[in-house]
Amino acid sequence: MLPPKSDFSEWYHEVIQQAQIMDIRYPVKGLYVWFPFGFKLRNLVYGKLRDIMDREHDEVYFPALIPETELGKEGEHIKGFEDEVYWITHGGLDELDVKLALRPTSETAMYPMFKLWIRSHADLPLRIYQIVNVFRYETKHTRPLIRLREITSFKEAHTAHRSYEEAEENVKMAINAYKEFFDSLAIPYFIIKRPEWDKFPGADYTIAFDTIMPDGKTLQIGTVHNLADNFARTFDLKYETPEGDQAYVYQTCYGISERCVASVISIHGDDTGLILPFRLAPYQTVIIPILYKGKEREVLDLSNEVFNRLKEFGLRAILDDSDERPGAKYYKWELFGVPLRIEIGPKEAESREAVISFRDERVKRKISIEEITEEKITEWADEMHERLRKRALDSMLEKVRFFDKVDEMEEWMGRGVALFYLCQSLECGKSVEEDVKAGVLGEVVEMPEEIGIDKEGKCTVCGKSGKLNAIAKSY
Amino acid sequence: MLPPKSDFSEWYHEVIQQAQIMDIRYPVKGLYVWFPFGFKLRNLVYGKLRDIMDREHDEVYFPALIPETELGKEGEHIKGFEDEVYWITHGGLDELDVKLALRPTSETAMYPMFKLWIRSHADLPLRIYQIVNVFRYETKHTRPLIRLREITSFKEAHTAHRSYEEAEENVKMAINAYKEFFDSLAIPYFIIKRPEWDKFPGADYTIAFDTIMPDGKTLQIGTVHNLADNFARTFDLKYETPEGDQAYVYQTCYGISERCVASVISIHGDDTGLILPFRLAPYQTVIIPILYKGKEREVLDLSNEVFNRLKEFGLRAILDDSDERPGAKYYKWELFGVPLRIEIGPKEAESREAVISFRDERVKRKISIEEITEEKITEWADEMHERLRKRALDSMLEKVRFFDKVDEMEEWMGRGVALFYLCQSLECGKSVEEDVKAGVLGEVVEMPEEIGIDKEGKCTVCGKSGKLNAIAKSY
Repeated sequence: MLPPKSDFSEWYHEVIQQAQIMDIRYPVKGLYVWFPFGFKLRNLVYGKLRDIMDREHDEVYFPALIPETELGKEGEHIKGFEDEVYWITHGGLDELDVKLALRPTSETAMYPMFKLWIRSHADLPLRIYQIVNVFRYETKHTRPLIRLREITSFKEAHTAHRSYEEAEENVKMAINAYKEFFDSLAIPYFIIKRPEWDKFPGADYTIAFDTIMPDGKTLQIGTVHNLADNFARTFDLKYETPEGDQAYVYQTCYGISERCVASVISIHGDDTGLILPFRLAPYQTVIIPILYKGKEREVLDLSNEVFNRLKEFGLRAILDDSDERPGAKYYKWELFGVPLRIEIGPKEAESREAVISFRDERVKRKISIEEITEEKITEWADEMHERLRKRALDSMLEKVRFFDKVDEMEEWMGRGVALFYLCQSLECGKSVEEDVKAGVLGEVVEMPEEIGIDKEGKCTVCGKSGKLNAIAKSY
Repeated sequence: MLPPKSDFSEWYHEVIQQAQIMDIRYPVKGLYVWFPFGFKLRNLVYGKLRDIMDREHDEVYFPALIPETELGKEGEHIKGFEDEVYWITHGGLDELDVKLALRPTSETAMYPMFKLWIRSHADLPLRIYQIVNVFRYETKHTRPLIRLREITSFKEAHTAHRSYEEAEENVKMAINAYKEFFDSLAIPYFIIKRPEWDKFPGADYTIAFDTIMPDGKTLQIGTVHNLADNFARTFDLKYETPEGDQAYVYQTCYGISERCVASVISIHGDDTGLILPFRLAPYQTVIIPILYKGKEREVLDLSNEVFNRLKEFGLRAILDDSDERPGAKYYKWELFGVPLRIEIGPKEAESREAVISFRDERVKRKISIEEITEEKITEWADEMHERLRKRALDSMLEKVRFFDKVDEMEEWMGRGVALFYLCQSLECGKSVEEDVKAGVLGEVVEMPEEIGIDKEGKCTVCGKSGKLNAIAKSY
């Protein structure tokens, strides 16, 4: 049994283990083992991400080890990461001449190679991505998929362009790609420009995707950085312009980690386990034959017929004809979030019908077997997706509140996101953070239209003209 | 231009870079960057491997970091790896309490978890695999895909069984899976049982797949280990038998690295570049329109028609309508190993024909456009595969020679594999290695039938009864 989801922290801890996403018992803090079922889900989610990235990017693979000399080149970058880099000092029994860092992210592995790859304007734009393991020495409380020492599935894209404007265009493209991706997970989000003091180390600015977890804390699920020519100047990345001059390239990078899987689990799940969007579920449909003595044959025959038909449609279907009681089977497949359950008993076998129910609705409905067509399944999948999207959005909206006074915001922290107006000054931003005891997420660039609040207004602190900002406790 | 393949070492070094498999200019010895084209090839090769593994195994992911306490548990295992393990000693600015090893292979990461996963006979067999990066501090000469400090794509499978016999059965299954895999690459191989002194550290015995590179040195491209209950005793892996007793499990593990890609490049390639088997080629077909002024339209129309037809068949086709001269295009796509080239000029456009040629034959043939059907492509792909298989096999057979005297073998080393009879004694084995100045690969379990030599005979050293063994210089 799971704890109720209202006790989110416990529920998450348990559902990750019981629904066989990750085994949390690996003997090192912050490292976890992907179970077969979890890894299937991971592959389906990242398959979608890969499809989207492949349109505009080439997939590559860069080494996991970065020499200290390269990692240290960009001053702000290394300052941002020095507390969380793992250092390899020995190979076998020898001490290494140059220490190697386990990549925390791959700017400093990639950009020395970009210098070799980029010669002229014809080589631009350059757009690549990789899905790799990266490492962070986390000293805070670690959590599977959310805060780890080995992020096993970091999708990082890196680009180079001719001008700041082209880099800006690419930021927009990346944001649209991420919107499409999170929409495919039915995960709602804010798109927020991080404040100056919280941008990616070495970036010109950082745009983040934030969603709200069931406990009201936000989860940053994606980031897009405009690096301007900051790294280009450090790594001497120049290209020959059409006019024959040498100019620095402008860069962007953007990343998504397995937090995307965490968001699916956390936001869609319920007291009985996972609820997975149809197209991402490792098992999309389970057929459960209800067996009574003497009628087994007919029931199993029809179950197999339906099973084979679903297979023909290319669906990931299972026929659970194990010896367990139906109740135990319901329990199990609900825990694993199987979107569509099809039950067939003796009555149904006789009338060529089936009882269907969707994981999110749990309402049983009798249909004729002939109704189970490829088109119908697509329709059901779309309808379920829309229900999940709507439910997740409603739940998020409940956790968003607008404030026009700073002193009312603290109480809301831990329950959701507070929206308020803020000017650009560091002073006002820092004073809000101190008063509210939470971190300013930044300026809201895009939000669900249902929120319906103007993006401009008077700074809640100083009264000067400001922008709509968000503040919350975050993972 | 490439150096001739007869100068294999130089050729390999150049083809890896020029055909954009890996960029060898990363600033750390033994670490390389997968280019987009190389990574596509890697994904196609590993996609095939994954399909084969998925039949009997579940894919998982275990952490890359192994605490020193676990890695050191199995005495022989750690002794085998202690010279080549990378050690992480610091996280940020802190020294770690327990040093972490970067996995050189994952027995010691996995088996502590197996202890939690295996309770009863019903949990067996347990069969999992992962495709991950592993690390070896290589002090010898490093080479892309062959000897690396980060093996980026190590497929390692790990199993647990009820008995030694069931583990033996699994070894056979794994060997068959690997045969199917290498057959799909058209790579010929010997299957060889490694001598006692060269088995995997901690194994009962090791079976290896060895192929022969163009320079006559062998390349170990896959290994299958029967671990018996050696690791089970170390990690206390017991299960409850049907009778209610506690018994140790028996284990196997088996691995394939990106050397499988190295073998495809090295064995099939020629002086002008890669030659890729049809089903693994990132670009399977290139269409080259031959443009003359005034006739461009007809040629491009027909080229596009063929291109779209190939796309409909699900083929990875490209239409190279760039401004380069046809000769430059031929050169380029030959370098990248594109199996099928289709040229369409004004004459062909008029008669609805095309000139086709296969990368391995380089013989031009005119066909009618209507002949380009899905069935025909399949037939061509099969024929080409058979040609590549045959050519690779012939080339391997030339490098295999039987010897009945030890003193003639040394001269053959560096040219190929010497077959000879050897008894089981360490003394005879070591004396051959010393005389011949090469390593005994072990007892030949399976070889191409064309070799036609008995597997049993009198030991070439002592004259006692022996088995057919192989000796060679190896990568």
